[in-house]
Amino acid sequence: MNYQEFTRKIKADSFKMASLPHDMRNEALLAIIKALSENSDAIVSANAKDLKHAEADHLAGPLLSRLKFDAHKLQETLNGISDLVKLPDPLFQTVLERELDAGLTLFKVTCPIGVIGVIFESRPDSLIQIAALCIKSGNCCILKGGSEAAHTNRILFDIIKDAGIKAGLPDGFAALAESRADINELLKCHESIDLIIPRGSNSFVQYIMENSKIPVMGHADGVCHIYVDKSADLHKAIPIIIDAKTQYVAACNATETLLVHKDIAARLLPILKEGFDEKNTTLRVCSTAKEIIDCEIATENDFMTEYLDYTLAVKIVDSIEDAISHINLYGSHHTDGIITEDATAAEMFMGFVDSAGVYQNCSTRFADGFRYGFGAEVGISTGKLHARGPVGLDGLVSYKYKLYGNGHIVADYSEGRKSFHFKDK
Amino acid sequence: MNYQEFTRKIKADSFKMASLPHDMRNEALLAIIKALSENSDAIVSANAKDLKHAEADHLAGPLLSRLKFDAHKLQETLNGISDLVKLPDPLFQTVLERELDAGLTLFKVTCPIGVIGVIFESRPDSLIQIAALCIKSGNCCILKGGSEAAHTNRILFDIIKDAGIKAGLPDGFAALAESRADINELLKCHESIDLIIPRGSNSFVQYIMENSKIPVMGHADGVCHIYVDKSADLHKAIPIIIDAKTQYVAACNATETLLVHKDIAARLLPILKEGFDEKNTTLRVCSTAKEIIDCEIATENDFMTEYLDYTLAVKIVDSIEDAISHINLYGSHHTDGIITEDATAAEMFMGFVDSAGVYQNCSTRFADGFRYGFGAEVGISTGKLHARGPVGLDGLVSYKYKLYGNGHIVADYSEGRKSFHFKDK
Repeated sequence: MNYQEFTRKIKADSFKMASLPHDMRNEALLAIIKALSENSDAIVSANAKDLKHAEADHLAGPLLSRLKFDAHKLQETLNGISDLVKLPDPLFQTVLERELDAGLTLFKVTCPIGVIGVIFESRPDSLIQIAALCIKSGNCCILKGGSEAAHTNRILFDIIKDAGIKAGLPDGFAALAESRADINELLKCHESIDLIIPRGSNSFVQYIMENSKIPVMGHADGVCHIYVDKSADLHKAIPIIIDAKTQYVAACNATETLLVHKDIAARLLPILKEGFDEKNTTLRVCSTAKEIIDCEIATENDFMTEYLDYTLAVKIVDSIEDAISHINLYGSHHTDGIITEDATAAEMFMGFVDSAGVYQNCSTRFADGFRYGFGAEVGISTGKLHARGPVGLDGLVSYKYKLYGNGHIVADYSEGRKSFHFKDK
Repeated sequence: MNYQEFTRKIKADSFKMASLPHDMRNEALLAIIKALSENSDAIVSANAKDLKHAEADHLAGPLLSRLKFDAHKLQETLNGISDLVKLPDPLFQTVLERELDAGLTLFKVTCPIGVIGVIFESRPDSLIQIAALCIKSGNCCILKGGSEAAHTNRILFDIIKDAGIKAGLPDGFAALAESRADINELLKCHESIDLIIPRGSNSFVQYIMENSKIPVMGHADGVCHIYVDKSADLHKAIPIIIDAKTQYVAACNATETLLVHKDIAARLLPILKEGFDEKNTTLRVCSTAKEIIDCEIATENDFMTEYLDYTLAVKIVDSIEDAISHINLYGSHHTDGIITEDATAAEMFMGFVDSAGVYQNCSTRFADGFRYGFGAEVGISTGKLHARGPVGLDGLVSYKYKLYGNGHIVADYSEGRKSFHFKDK
């Protein structure tokens, strides 16, 4: 396959996609919902094949449960797409309307990004959600799902593609990449692919960032922190910390390091250790904390580790300033929280900590597009340009400037015959 | 010099900078205006040294005039900074306020990007403008100006730095890089520098994009087009095309290729050639156009060239669709215009052309932050992520999500004991 040519065609179709009215994009989504719903049995059968292979390969339990896609999960996913249909059009929105001079008017209008490559994990609902978000936002997508879900992804993609084209979307509105080799070739197509959103493992995201000129939106690490301030309410602190660590350890927004103010450590740590013992969670602690609770000693490396497991690094700090410095230095700028009853301390923490999410008195696990009310998310970004934090439809649009004149030339302004008056509408 | 350590210190100061109130940033700008104004004579003397060297090196006339920085130009630049002071604070703006559930409220709040490296051309006013934009938006900046302006840049920087620190900015709010070697070292500091904005030559911008993991905002090329539709008013078309090509040929928004609908070519081209002959501008034309006007024949390469000179490539097209395809394929997604009296044709062109600026009946030279009323610009972006087109203060800010809870944990929601209600304020 000639990937350059393949992506150039998709790029050409992205210009058509960019001009489709909202009604047409929504009708395509409704047609896709209908087609997927009608093919529920075939989808579940395809998924059964993937499950059988996965069991034969001794895939771990949690991975198996993510891979499983039954009629109920399909319906839940389609309900989410129905909600997406109801959201307002992210395109053609006038963000700015400014008369520069008589007869010369500038409009800043939202438009799609173009061609987006999304590489996602083994949950088959991801394919449907990402394709739907891209259609709603007028982008063409190239989808690469986890290889464990190959049969499920193939049938989902075929149904979506067929229904979308019948509903009037251009041929190139969606494409499926099926192998790692495909990805390597696609990474070279920086002239046709505008953005890559990887949702795979850290090492894979790093690999993509280092091997492509295509902009990448995502996060390589999720080393999230909770800092327990001296003025924390322990009745809030303990459930929050246990939730943030253990509610779903494989998530990027799970807390990996706990920082504790020295004045509260002796009260907090023993109760906390009891709580974590019940959850079979290992604490790796600094030498000062070890004087209070008997746990493994943490090394420097522990404070840079995204465990994605039932392990938590714990460090006692002398001050809120030390906590902030630690987080900015060791963290991954994803989501970090403070537990405190002191509003000034909270504002200081939230102002100085340089992360996409800064939280007071709640679990870092809230960092999620659904929980933020974005309807769905394409990923979480730890970059500071374009979208940051959980990325919903907003992160899939760009804008262009439209300028309407009536024979206006710059020489008239530079030579003083005319001048700008800026009037916003 | 240890650049990693140097930039890490600036990064640490960027967190302080991010929390400075608007008043303090504005007071620093006013102190800088005062200090520069009081040192006008010394600045002009330093500039005289640069001019003397430049003359000895036989620098071209236009470059010399860009390099020249007299008391009048200084005052004009400072007037621009006074205007900037009056603009509203780009930071701490709440873009979204949403109650996720009782007592759990999400705020999306603007914040600075962090540390920005700006590499700019030989105009000394750039240094003042860029430093001021970064201060206003709470970013730390690392400045590298044209080596021709070394003496001027050094004195401007010293005055700005001294006045800024006296006014309470952190030490690392601004730094000066003075050699190409500095740049190569800084490109490796992707952990501390958040963004590079290069405003140099095309080859240099490409070099930066290929040799750093730091995100780059800018444009490598400015191959701008004007398409003259069959329904164009020639009384508007001719002055616009001449302005777009010749008003300032060295600018990235100057038009490099003219596309002409076949039905209007015979009327347009002879008059146009007369106009361009007066401006000593060479036309390089397609073979069909050569049957109408006697000019050099254009090669394929001409249609990909940013001349930055008194040369224009001319091609006759069969339809508006052909014009759009040509622009999307050969252009650089910077600024492209249509000359037409037909509103439907204009909307089609502006919808399908994938460029930061799409214009009707005006010169491409309007693509500029000042002319858009942004107060000043740090550059023009042809990327589609983050900022696109002329980039003013808006392009120098990111945002963070602040979530305030009262002991909220995710388990309550995932296990159905609580549910989200999303209420925007």
